[in-house]
Amino acid sequence: MTSNREIHLASRPVGWPTEDTFRLVETDVPTPGPGQIVVRNQYMSVDPYMRGRMNDVKSYVAPYALDAPLDGGAIGEVVASEAADIAVGATVQHGLGWREFALLDATAARPVDPSIAPVSAYLSVLGMTGMTAYAGLLDVAAMKPGETVFVSAAAGAVGSLVGQIAKLKGAGRVVGSAGSPAKVERLRALGFDAAFDYHDGPVRESLRAAAPDGVDVYFDNVGGDHLEAAISAMKLHGRVAICGMIGQYNATEPPAAPRNLALVIGKRLTLRGFLVNDHNDVRAAFVRDVAGWLADGTLSYDETIVDGIENAPAAFLGLLRGDNLGKMLVRV
Amino acid sequence: MTSNREIHLASRPVGWPTEDTFRLVETDVPTPGPGQIVVRNQYMSVDPYMRGRMNDVKSYVAPYALDAPLDGGAIGEVVASEAADIAVGATVQHGLGWREFALLDATAARPVDPSIAPVSAYLSVLGMTGMTAYAGLLDVAAMKPGETVFVSAAAGAVGSLVGQIAKLKGAGRVVGSAGSPAKVERLRALGFDAAFDYHDGPVRESLRAAAPDGVDVYFDNVGGDHLEAAISAMKLHGRVAICGMIGQYNATEPPAAPRNLALVIGKRLTLRGFLVNDHNDVRAAFVRDVAGWLADGTLSYDETIVDGIENAPAAFLGLLRGDNLGKMLVRV
Repeated sequence: MTSNREIHLASRPVGWPTEDTFRLVETDVPTPGPGQIVVRNQYMSVDPYMRGRMNDVKSYVAPYALDAPLDGGAIGEVVASEAADIAVGATVQHGLGWREFALLDATAARPVDPSIAPVSAYLSVLGMTGMTAYAGLLDVAAMKPGETVFVSAAAGAVGSLVGQIAKLKGAGRVVGSAGSPAKVERLRALGFDAAFDYHDGPVRESLRAAAPDGVDVYFDNVGGDHLEAAISAMKLHGRVAICGMIGQYNATEPPAAPRNLALVIGKRLTLRGFLVNDHNDVRAAFVRDVAGWLADGTLSYDETIVDGIENAPAAFLGLLRGDNLGKMLVRV
Repeated sequence: MTSNREIHLASRPVGWPTEDTFRLVETDVPTPGPGQIVVRNQYMSVDPYMRGRMNDVKSYVAPYALDAPLDGGAIGEVVASEAADIAVGATVQHGLGWREFALLDATAARPVDPSIAPVSAYLSVLGMTGMTAYAGLLDVAAMKPGETVFVSAAAGAVGSLVGQIAKLKGAGRVVGSAGSPAKVERLRALGFDAAFDYHDGPVRESLRAAAPDGVDVYFDNVGGDHLEAAISAMKLHGRVAICGMIGQYNATEPPAAPRNLALVIGKRLTLRGFLVNDHNDVRAAFVRDVAGWLADGTLSYDETIVDGIENAPAAFLGLLRGDNLGKMLVRV
């Protein structure tokens, strides 16, 4: 192979990105220098946080550069190596997705064992996605057995794990919201006690019906009306783990909700934004628990797989629209 | 004395209360039954939270009843007693303000020592007000030495103590906002490193100028634009102790701000609403610290005193407008 294809950021989107946000660029397959490897990517992760990086604003990760390849979680096979400790043929996880061949320092790659789980799982349930669900629910929100948990975007990669982990850790009641009847059906199959389609009416009313006794923990992936509804439904001393606000990533006007934030005083609520990298102290427990649940089949994970690097922009746009069930991946 | 005057809730205000919200009612001085005492109130506390109790909504305290006396913190002298353990002449603190004479079970009264401090101090710096500032800053927001603290309504009863306690506990920089040039001047005299009048421009810009390196802890008494500005100014892992949102207690439309709540994710911010009663575990430290600071003169507290029970409604309306410097009290 002498040709490598990669996706560049062609323009910074205002509001919703489009196909014109991206550009497919053909380059040469890179050659490793000393200490470097070349990875032929098999899967790349498509994540909501990438939308924020398309804006030219200071944040917790640098914005993507214009006319340069995007990046993000990926996994693949080493096809060339000038590094002593990583051999050709090894499967490695790294941060240079959005391209067919990735050139990186061997120190930036993490070898994984493809015999333990399908390699795609290292980008979802065994990777950042699973760890985000686990740490957010158990460390940030400190869910206790018997509590009622609400999670939004519950059929998504993180949300579907949050709900299942909550049940596995003894939650009394788990409620999820999603964006289609099929997703709601899937949530019931995954063991959610109640689920609703947020298109069916005001979130506040749907949530009240699904959790009539109130909510102890809300795992927020959406923001806006979902957060406002959760605040209204929270019990005393409730906790909100704020993981994402996909409902407003494409907003061109600052969002107004939640308008009921004053309720946090009387209810003594805690709202906490988090990034998974701050919670490495629970990583060992995460690996132990998730490996066990996968081995005995108690934890399910969905994947929506799009084929071909040239379709990565479409996969990302679909993710923002909510086309995916579970983890959105591109098979490169 | 055979006559007692008390203030009743005459109507539930929509938006800002007015004099018509209240009614002065003349009754007989009550007579104690077994185990009861009668207190001639000397001071009563006027607090922002009372506005919420004028609405007929479920909250952490019951709403005031229509055509019945309001209540709230008060202190006075026992003038009649049918209780073995409280003698006539004792000074007691209790919860039946808004009246000249209070009839209560002796168990609901807390004797205080008027030789330690002026009796009014038990309603401000030595009472719920001081404890709210102390617990919110040190327990809820867990301020550490060297940090930058921002407090709104900083010339008010709680805010002026928050700023001073922050300095006494080693804060690196303390910034306060207030509503008049005189208040801003007072904050500087109290040792605030910077202070601004929120009328002088967008809070966001004033705060950025006053705390150019960002804010670690925000003690929120106001909500709305102040909270939004604080979120924008917060450093990574910043904490917001939400004590009150006086900026919206009289709002008839749900307030829109903060529109930048998504920043809590990347900055890993924690927003926590609190009520002082949940923090009795720091009460002993509070009493020890504040008694010491009062004894050596390092802690100042301001009082705005309005004379006469008939002027209590005016005092309350003035509090909502921000007419007070420090604690608003009525000398009954």
